[in-house]
Amino acid sequence: MSKPIERFYSIIPAGGIGSRLWPLSRASAPKFLHDLTGSGQTLLQDTWDRLLPLTPADRIVVVTGRVHEEAVNEQLEDLVANNLVLEKSPKDSTAAIALAAAILHKRQPDVIVGSFAADHVIVESKLFEATVREAVEVAATGKIVTIGIEPTEPAVGFGYIKTGEVLSGTAKNVLKFVEKPNIAKARRYVESGNYLWNAGMFIAPAALLLEQVEKTEPALYQSIMEIADDWDTPQRDATLDRIWPTLKKVAIDYTVAEPAALAGLVAVIPATFTWHDVGDFAAIAELQSQGRRGNLAVLGNAKVLADSSSGILVSETDRLVALIGIEDVIVVDTPDALLVTTKEHAQRVKSLVDALKATGHSDLL
Amino acid sequence: MSKPIERFYSIIPAGGIGSRLWPLSRASAPKFLHDLTGSGQTLLQDTWDRLLPLTPADRIVVVTGRVHEEAVNEQLEDLVANNLVLEKSPKDSTAAIALAAAILHKRQPDVIVGSFAADHVIVESKLFEATVREAVEVAATGKIVTIGIEPTEPAVGFGYIKTGEVLSGTAKNVLKFVEKPNIAKARRYVESGNYLWNAGMFIAPAALLLEQVEKTEPALYQSIMEIADDWDTPQRDATLDRIWPTLKKVAIDYTVAEPAALAGLVAVIPATFTWHDVGDFAAIAELQSQGRRGNLAVLGNAKVLADSSSGILVSETDRLVALIGIEDVIVVDTPDALLVTTKEHAQRVKSLVDALKATGHSDLL
Repeated sequence: MSKPIERFYSIIPAGGIGSRLWPLSRASAPKFLHDLTGSGQTLLQDTWDRLLPLTPADRIVVVTGRVHEEAVNEQLEDLVANNLVLEKSPKDSTAAIALAAAILHKRQPDVIVGSFAADHVIVESKLFEATVREAVEVAATGKIVTIGIEPTEPAVGFGYIKTGEVLSGTAKNVLKFVEKPNIAKARRYVESGNYLWNAGMFIAPAALLLEQVEKTEPALYQSIMEIADDWDTPQRDATLDRIWPTLKKVAIDYTVAEPAALAGLVAVIPATFTWHDVGDFAAIAELQSQGRRGNLAVLGNAKVLADSSSGILVSETDRLVALIGIEDVIVVDTPDALLVTTKEHAQRVKSLVDALKATGHSDLL
Repeated sequence: MSKPIERFYSIIPAGGIGSRLWPLSRASAPKFLHDLTGSGQTLLQDTWDRLLPLTPADRIVVVTGRVHEEAVNEQLEDLVANNLVLEKSPKDSTAAIALAAAILHKRQPDVIVGSFAADHVIVESKLFEATVREAVEVAATGKIVTIGIEPTEPAVGFGYIKTGEVLSGTAKNVLKFVEKPNIAKARRYVESGNYLWNAGMFIAPAALLLEQVEKTEPALYQSIMEIADDWDTPQRDATLDRIWPTLKKVAIDYTVAEPAALAGLVAVIPATFTWHDVGDFAAIAELQSQGRRGNLAVLGNAKVLADSSSGILVSETDRLVALIGIEDVIVVDTPDALLVTTKEHAQRVKSLVDALKATGHSDLL
């Protein structure tokens, strides 16, 4: 067997709409296709660049919806055509990640894969790189390795990882994954010191990962392997078109992470880097370091006149935006929809999107 | 002499931009051309309709800027062409009102004129009509009669009228006009019970009004009479073009109201109707009775999703506007500019307009 990092490949599942970021994030232009940090790059591009020191361009697979094919290819010039998996319809994370793992496994049986969401923000990329390197080393010992985030608050928006004994280095055994808690539980988790946030990052030998899917969802496993067998052949499209619609929709948490943890197969490396899932506009305001006018974060090229205002303005139009004496505001100005709220209510944007669906405004979603 | 009301004519000076209503109100589309009450009519149309029971269409003169010619003619279908005075450039209220009075005086020497701003809101039009009828009766005795508004608060945005002894009916003598006070003075005025708000309405024999202008500004008077002499002749445009640019800019307060009051020539009828000058968006929110979604007043045809929000939304676009958990907000959504502020800061819109001027955004004013 070759050295661990030499057989390491990255998978970027680029899915999810990000309803809490409406009207910026839409079904047609989800979160990962936007520059939400003011870096000048989209979250997808930032993710790609962060992985390049670990896996050169030809060792990164992107899984995304067919409608995003053009945008993804435009944003990732160096993405290899055969490494772009286009989903005909959303089938949740097991299908997406396991298919990418199966394609890579077919090409090189001892491959170790790492899966990294396209829409997260990681501030210190050097620390991220070191953490993943350690994770790959641990994965090579026959583990599914996740990267857990040290909680900074009793967040109720994330699942948690319950850690056990130290395995080696900073790696710990994972006792179990737990779902998003209520606030009381979240407080207990954080106080105990034994819980980390689940950021959905997995590093594992592809064979081990697929073995878990085979155990929990054998039919799904068979279908995925069938597509993978034909991937690098002229039959790819026909096989994909035939099988993809039949795939079971199930999150990888249920097919791999949770059962594998209970089987003692999962390790975690506590992250030492700063991580954000950029869940809502309040989070974006926190992130924004550039483009500030006083206490107002500005994303986009809006002409702004802000008089004693704070919060965030996200603009996709060239209209002048004038804000007077308004604190912690969130203004999102797009050609066909305008959102005005406050940081305090940032999470409620999702229910507004639900209301839009209910009132027949699907064209705006 | 004919009966007072039979020789009564109305003048509507339609000027002023209404900077506090930016970005709705612009130099190209000032306050009076907008429906700010949700009545389905503009303020100018409401003013016109309010005057019709007093003065039929052919006895109303409108004075406005040349750029508004088309809009005014569109909004006032029954306006007589010879009764539309178009200003080449703004020359303040003496030129506007005195020229209209002079034109009418030339046509019928015993005319009594009433001047009523195009951009005020009066709720009870029957009471308005009765008040003006009384004012015309008093004017016919050789007085300049104003209509004073009973103060409901110590407003600092209006000038005040100091009243003296009762003349007849509800009419009182006017001791003097005073400028916009500071808050302490405003409180004293209101507590004394001897002060009314100056709403800028004047009813007077045209001859008496012009006599005052002749006394205080003889050159301006001569120029105005010269234009009036040629008004209903083929020389109108040539004379207007030649003389208008030379006219002195001066408010009628200084040329007529204040000196005439000191000379004991002014009477006031205290208004019993509800009057608003619609000075800012907070005032519009108060006025709005129609188009409310919960606690949010909506002007325009915006699609609105408001979740526990209050205040006012003024929309000139067809964009969806979503408001979440935002109290006393003012959102004004126009094709090229967006304003977000709160009722509390409604008055600060004017300084924002000044800032726009200073930063070279005159195209948006």
